[in-house]
Amino acid sequence: MHGTLPEVTGVSIAMNDTPTTTAPSSPRMKGDYFPVEEGKPLTLGPPRRQNSGTNTPRVRPTTLDIPGLTKSKVSPDGRIAQRDVGAKLVIVMVGLPARGKSYITKKLARYLNWLQHDTKIFNVGERRRHEKAVPNVPKEPEDEAMEQNSSFFDPDNTKASQIREQVARETLDELLDYILNKGGSVGIFDATNSTLDRRKMVMDRIRERAGPDLNVLFLESRCVDENLLEANMRLKLNGPDYRDMDPVVALEDFKKRIKVYEKAYVPLGDYEEKNHMPYIQMIDVGRKIISHQIKGFLMAQANYYLLNFNLAPRQIWITRHGLSHDNISGKIGGDSDLAPEGVQYAKSLAKFMDEKRHEWDMKQIEDMRKTHFPPQPGDATPPNPYYRPQSPTAERPRPNANTSAPNGTSTTSSATDLSALDEDYTPKAFCVWTSMLKRSISTAQFFNDEEYDTKQMRMLDELNAGVMEGLTYSCISTQHPTEYAARKRDKLHYRYPGPGGEGYLDIINRLRPVIVELERMTDHVLLVGHRSVARVLLAYFRGLKREEVADLDVPIGMLYCLEPKPYGVDFKAYRWHKEKEWFYEVPNFELKRAEDDML
Amino acid sequence: MHGTLPEVTGVSIAMNDTPTTTAPSSPRMKGDYFPVEEGKPLTLGPPRRQNSGTNTPRVRPTTLDIPGLTKSKVSPDGRIAQRDVGAKLVIVMVGLPARGKSYITKKLARYLNWLQHDTKIFNVGERRRHEKAVPNVPKEPEDEAMEQNSSFFDPDNTKASQIREQVARETLDELLDYILNKGGSVGIFDATNSTLDRRKMVMDRIRERAGPDLNVLFLESRCVDENLLEANMRLKLNGPDYRDMDPVVALEDFKKRIKVYEKAYVPLGDYEEKNHMPYIQMIDVGRKIISHQIKGFLMAQANYYLLNFNLAPRQIWITRHGLSHDNISGKIGGDSDLAPEGVQYAKSLAKFMDEKRHEWDMKQIEDMRKTHFPPQPGDATPPNPYYRPQSPTAERPRPNANTSAPNGTSTTSSATDLSALDEDYTPKAFCVWTSMLKRSISTAQFFNDEEYDTKQMRMLDELNAGVMEGLTYSCISTQHPTEYAARKRDKLHYRYPGPGGEGYLDIINRLRPVIVELERMTDHVLLVGHRSVARVLLAYFRGLKREEVADLDVPIGMLYCLEPKPYGVDFKAYRWHKEKEWFYEVPNFELKRAEDDML
Repeated sequence: MHGTLPEVTGVSIAMNDTPTTTAPSSPRMKGDYFPVEEGKPLTLGPPRRQNSGTNTPRVRPTTLDIPGLTKSKVSPDGRIAQRDVGAKLVIVMVGLPARGKSYITKKLARYLNWLQHDTKIFNVGERRRHEKAVPNVPKEPEDEAMEQNSSFFDPDNTKASQIREQVARETLDELLDYILNKGGSVGIFDATNSTLDRRKMVMDRIRERAGPDLNVLFLESRCVDENLLEANMRLKLNGPDYRDMDPVVALEDFKKRIKVYEKAYVPLGDYEEKNHMPYIQMIDVGRKIISHQIKGFLMAQANYYLLNFNLAPRQIWITRHGLSHDNISGKIGGDSDLAPEGVQYAKSLAKFMDEKRHEWDMKQIEDMRKTHFPPQPGDATPPNPYYRPQSPTAERPRPNANTSAPNGTSTTSSATDLSALDEDYTPKAFCVWTSMLKRSISTAQFFNDEEYDTKQMRMLDELNAGVMEGLTYSCISTQHPTEYAARKRDKLHYRYPGPGGEGYLDIINRLRPVIVELERMTDHVLLVGHRSVARVLLAYFRGLKREEVADLDVPIGMLYCLEPKPYGVDFKAYRWHKEKEWFYEVPNFELKRAEDDML
Repeated sequence: MHGTLPEVTGVSIAMNDTPTTTAPSSPRMKGDYFPVEEGKPLTLGPPRRQNSGTNTPRVRPTTLDIPGLTKSKVSPDGRIAQRDVGAKLVIVMVGLPARGKSYITKKLARYLNWLQHDTKIFNVGERRRHEKAVPNVPKEPEDEAMEQNSSFFDPDNTKASQIREQVARETLDELLDYILNKGGSVGIFDATNSTLDRRKMVMDRIRERAGPDLNVLFLESRCVDENLLEANMRLKLNGPDYRDMDPVVALEDFKKRIKVYEKAYVPLGDYEEKNHMPYIQMIDVGRKIISHQIKGFLMAQANYYLLNFNLAPRQIWITRHGLSHDNISGKIGGDSDLAPEGVQYAKSLAKFMDEKRHEWDMKQIEDMRKTHFPPQPGDATPPNPYYRPQSPTAERPRPNANTSAPNGTSTTSSATDLSALDEDYTPKAFCVWTSMLKRSISTAQFFNDEEYDTKQMRMLDELNAGVMEGLTYSCISTQHPTEYAARKRDKLHYRYPGPGGEGYLDIINRLRPVIVELERMTDHVLLVGHRSVARVLLAYFRGLKREEVADLDVPIGMLYCLEPKPYGVDFKAYRWHKEKEWFYEVPNFELKRAEDDML
């Protein structure tokens, strides 16, 4: 390892071609925390070359890679270097149908891509559906669960399972091509993978093609909570096969189908632990998480993100500050206060949020009333386990006027007294987050402190323009033409020169804890940001492509609403009407590219 | 909840004084993800007031509080407000003796304090030892495990256990005083708490005094891995009671004592899950972690940190860049390159690291040879499960010259050929991390790319002095006397004015991912930082007090080495000798305050 190592070309490699013994010298997977037990692990693939010769590839450390914030010879842009296979990650999904695998997969991929780690989902079911080379190939159990002929997916039906395995292998190979040859950093293998045999096949194939260094994480979603499982299954009932069926009959039918796959299902656990394989098992989405031998920066990042999952219904609002003095003069950066129109905007905003918040509460109570177990026709959709089911009236405690109101006053029912509508209903808290800049703080000045929790966060500050702070774009184009051109060429990767100068990658990095917090919390929140901040936040929630982020059209006066749902995120946009001092929804709103590409 | 709510003074409170029923309206703990099951949870304490009247305290959201980066009316400094009991955290440790509880406790408290969240450990055993009011009170099982009279700690000995419970309660009350009355944010209750009865007592007392909002996290350390457990126990054998005993006899003795506590031990799990109580169970330090109903920002932070624990032996080196041109002229900030003396420093550094790295490898191989199971007298201490035990010679594979070296060459043994010394030994990778500033990058220029993995990180950049960049301190004192005085008054909380201007709290915040990464990785690392960065890094590893951080004496030319050990962190310091171009250890080195308090 040190400079004076004698040349022993070939010897050490040859040494490792001897049959593997059961002794501790058997190859250890990188990052294993404990010595490998006696007996060769089944899924390690080809033995690891040891570092005893100068010309054998050495084990490279895999440490944090943050695009824009880290840099090395092999990775000048901070992305994971193609060479560093050991820093890349394959995530293998595991789980029975209706356990929310695809939901988790999509969300995780969105997060990792937003962090600028190239991530792609490889879905076995989708490949099969579009497969032309293998005609009449049966679908994944997951798809089939929605169809009539469930016997075809019985594990005892060997012919069908052989064909399925072939398609799974092809999908996996596509994933490995992406990781090994096409610059991908994370590949997610989305299929049920609920049998040990399938998982062994997957590991063997990965080790065969990628060697021992590539990190593999098994990620399972399990449901122990019967209500959650029922809610998940009911979500499936909104699919084409069941939509017009009596939901009670449909649910029974669907449950029968799942039973078929349960026959050969082995949850993650004993086998993986015995073989030192990293895994994460999410139980009841965010209730309980088991993390086993997490290693590598990306795996730790994914784990942290998954730990903060929840499905609580709530709203996330995003807007920019009201019109500021610098907005009028066209200067970038700075810390000017609101212009009169901006103050007007701030007033409308507080009022409109009051209204929307109340509207949401009313809708929530209504939805809760529409949720039954077992489901009934016409039930609120999509179902959500957080909609607490209404209990039968007989079991509900009614306030007893004699004991509970000693002064003789009874609770009066009014339109705004939510507890009178449903005494079990606890309205959510509502957070208002601003940056630490005046124009943002002032935009939140009319929110009632008793009803809203206002907080300032430096992470939400506008992109720092370094030496260009206080200039107009036309100034920059004449005084700093080279910088102007460089920014125009690649705004996402451009960083303003001078102390404190930032670029979009810096904004992503400092918004990362904010995003994780938004995922973690269960309250409503309004973020009063700035152009770059609003762009980066929307890019996360809308899963925008990398090249779209820095050019997004996010004008002053727009208010965006994101509502996480079991199937994704509902998105609405409202435009402020200055004269009416009110917001109006923009129908069928879609984010688009800004017309002025310098903004 | 909305402005027009009718006044129903007292009614809603009175309503909640009715006997609690078994129906779903029973109080839910804040942040519970799922409806409380039928039957009142045992440990919820007084029922939660509902939000049905305007004068009942409403549930406040607990979102991220980052000192220096967040701000609100109730928390102008970003610390957790005294009012926000729901944002505070009590951590209750659980675990049998010799499971590393105190190690985890100390490390976690060090991390949280470093993040500026006031954290304190309340150790039941320590209190008992110093207890004057209750003379002759027996010790905690944990202490007793080291003593002779183990029958005294038998759970069947009711009198002793009553006295022990009393001291536990007093310690807990002290913790609650700290959280509720003395501004503390996190209190850690360090005791075995291995029985259900004890844990119920703890929860009841917390709910009784703090109400339902205060977050409580149970944190257990379990050892399933026999080698790790044995290593932990052997660490105890270095204590005063066993030091001079035959280690084999001592170990047997210690094991017998632990058996006593196992009688009434109930690990975290079923009971806590049934009662919706958040917990984290660490199994085999970092191998496997179960996180249950983690809620609140602080709990999520603690969870993330604990997930990245490992005990791998390795070295963490910290130094500042070599002398730069700006150092000579006394200018702060900027991006000047190294002066000739700085280049000389860079050369010495690369050579010295080569030497120290090799020395460490040799020591490691030697330690591994000295580790036996069962332990033998004279074994290397402290034991570490990462020191792979040497297998009996008979089971060790020896390279067979006939099959492994087809060219007839045998492996030659040389002083530097580590694989010849121990063919199982894989030397660790070595990372060199610099900032993105020239003087730091240049200081790492002589490290061999084949042997060291060099990476630049923006997180390691020097504190940005905003508008003061490029000035000398004497300039600042004359041109900006108010700023000069403000910084002198409170350097830790001072932030330089102007775009990008930073303070020490910003440095802590941007080094947080670096610290977590240092805890996560198992390789050696050298960090080539700057004054503020080195101060903040050392503050973390040395657990410095808040007021010490910003005034630490960290001159150019010093090199610090931190080596995590099972009992803490070994700390050494080396001083560069310019003429000899080499580093020499400073005996009994202690960090001290800088003489010039403006630096």
